[in-house]
Amino acid sequence: MSQPSEKALVPFVSVDHMMRLVHQIGVQEMITRIAAAIETDFKRWEAFDKTPRIPAHSPHGVIELMPTSDGEAYGFKYVNGHPKNTSEGLQTVTAFGLLADVYTGYPVLLSEMTVLTALRTAAMSGIAAKYLAPKDARVMAMIGNGAQSEFQCLGFKALCEIDTVRLYDIDPAATAKCAANLARSGLTVISCTSPEEAIEGAQIITTCTADKKNATILTDNMVGSGVHINAIGGDCPGKTELHRDILLRSSIFVEYPEQTRIEGEIQQLDADHAVTELWQVMTGQAQGRSDARQITLFDSVGFAIEDFAALRVVKAAIVGTDCFEDLDMLADPDDPRDLFGMVQRAA
Amino acid sequence: MSQPSEKALVPFVSVDHMMRLVHQIGVQEMITRIAAAIETDFKRWEAFDKTPRIPAHSPHGVIELMPTSDGEAYGFKYVNGHPKNTSEGLQTVTAFGLLADVYTGYPVLLSEMTVLTALRTAAMSGIAAKYLAPKDARVMAMIGNGAQSEFQCLGFKALCEIDTVRLYDIDPAATAKCAANLARSGLTVISCTSPEEAIEGAQIITTCTADKKNATILTDNMVGSGVHINAIGGDCPGKTELHRDILLRSSIFVEYPEQTRIEGEIQQLDADHAVTELWQVMTGQAQGRSDARQITLFDSVGFAIEDFAALRVVKAAIVGTDCFEDLDMLADPDDPRDLFGMVQRAA
Repeated sequence: MSQPSEKALVPFVSVDHMMRLVHQIGVQEMITRIAAAIETDFKRWEAFDKTPRIPAHSPHGVIELMPTSDGEAYGFKYVNGHPKNTSEGLQTVTAFGLLADVYTGYPVLLSEMTVLTALRTAAMSGIAAKYLAPKDARVMAMIGNGAQSEFQCLGFKALCEIDTVRLYDIDPAATAKCAANLARSGLTVISCTSPEEAIEGAQIITTCTADKKNATILTDNMVGSGVHINAIGGDCPGKTELHRDILLRSSIFVEYPEQTRIEGEIQQLDADHAVTELWQVMTGQAQGRSDARQITLFDSVGFAIEDFAALRVVKAAIVGTDCFEDLDMLADPDDPRDLFGMVQRAA
Repeated sequence: MSQPSEKALVPFVSVDHMMRLVHQIGVQEMITRIAAAIETDFKRWEAFDKTPRIPAHSPHGVIELMPTSDGEAYGFKYVNGHPKNTSEGLQTVTAFGLLADVYTGYPVLLSEMTVLTALRTAAMSGIAAKYLAPKDARVMAMIGNGAQSEFQCLGFKALCEIDTVRLYDIDPAATAKCAANLARSGLTVISCTSPEEAIEGAQIITTCTADKKNATILTDNMVGSGVHINAIGGDCPGKTELHRDILLRSSIFVEYPEQTRIEGEIQQLDADHAVTELWQVMTGQAQGRSDARQITLFDSVGFAIEDFAALRVVKAAIVGTDCFEDLDMLADPDDPRDLFGMVQRAA
């Protein structure tokens, strides 16, 4: 017999709670835990209900819902993408998410996910690179130094032994901000004034820009052999970062092809262009990097299972802490059929 | 220039807040306001992004997301349907919902919707009956006396001048509960011991039962000419309440055919069986009741625009009241690109 009096309150992790939790655990440890959870869940890929996220597009940006379930837990994320927001003093991406119990349908966790999405995106990028990047990679170019950039750099440090990051942004102030934030990270930070300079000597190239148009952050002649490209910013129809010719030279790895073909860099390619699913690399069913001269490309768009994994890490991490509050989200009449009586008696 | 310090807090209406709001406004007035908002939105049907709700089915029940947008505001509802919950002391249906600003993608209201869904379902039923039921209808049979039943009865009183309700439930305790709750409602309440008795002399028959199987609450010989059937309970694949023969004798009205053909009573019929969309009746593009002997059937499953309308009523109603609290759901760095710095400085 479930206990409605406990079921009726939903733990809520606010932005302030999340920041405290990240401090208690540490950014790199948090990314490491989320990466482990993502890897666990990707290795049981077939256990999940999967669907491309459900977008509501407008001329101003996009609002998306990203649900998934493993049959025991259900999770979804609400996330917006509004590149024009930054110029108005607002976040490009804000998000929150929920976990629920499939058996009862009752929510069991509500959490901010603006910070958490940055952590899980870094975790996903790092884990993909663990399987795909050259083994001796120590230098990463970070192109686009916005809200995600420091998390990416620390994720690669934690998961891939990157020791040097080469920063570039079209706005030097963004690069200065990123460099300052990473000053005591243990990373060697080199601020660059062009994308060409940033990718010099880098074995990993991360692109994370936010323009909603077919931008070309990297052109074909900029990318040499043997690198791993971690393409984060192209995640929406009409929003890409890489020149098509780079894609044609690369071995392309994706999260969920049905979604990536709509949103990722590969929207520039034919619908049947061969791509490899990362979960199959993780389980050994498909090959990752097979050749030192190969260009590997992780065409990252972000998939619901990553958020599900991140929310489960948060749910476990808050136990016994003060990093949540209980929210009165669910009606809880003594007799479940007497919702009206509960409302009436509350007078 | 938007003000992030205000944007970053999201008004939250808890269950307790919602009950207080309903008391301050009154159940019937609340249903009346929501019905007016639904009618307004149905009359501008073509302005909305519409999609069948996104379900996650399990052997235990279903969890659904119901998004929609009119291009200025975006709304979605999370709702579960777990008929087995009642026997475990939990609600069959719990829900919460969100409104967001399409221009920024920022949430502007989070609200409980377990109570609100009962109110909006009653509003939708009442407004459909206003267009479809016989004009002199004063008596309603209410079959299924669970959590929705009192709201339905009061909705029909407020919107359709119903003065008498005839209650029946397979469990006499549910009927007794419903009758007690309606004792001072101004309605004449008659408790019945069979569905046949309940529908005697009723011009409107509301079915609202929760079994997840192809149940037959009404058989063909029970339904005479000239009635309006308000079928609420069939709202899931495999969950219906009416015998197929009744459907074949009825003029069928629906919210959103693409969703109703999956979930409603008409899942029993051919995919091209003629149905009329209610919004077209409201705008005068299609005919409602055309004949006193006609059987009209509102095959109600609940559509996202109804929740959108209900959330907007709540958003307007809480202004200047103490029926909400501000929730720290959105990260709000001074520099939107400096999410990491915000996390770091919070230490």
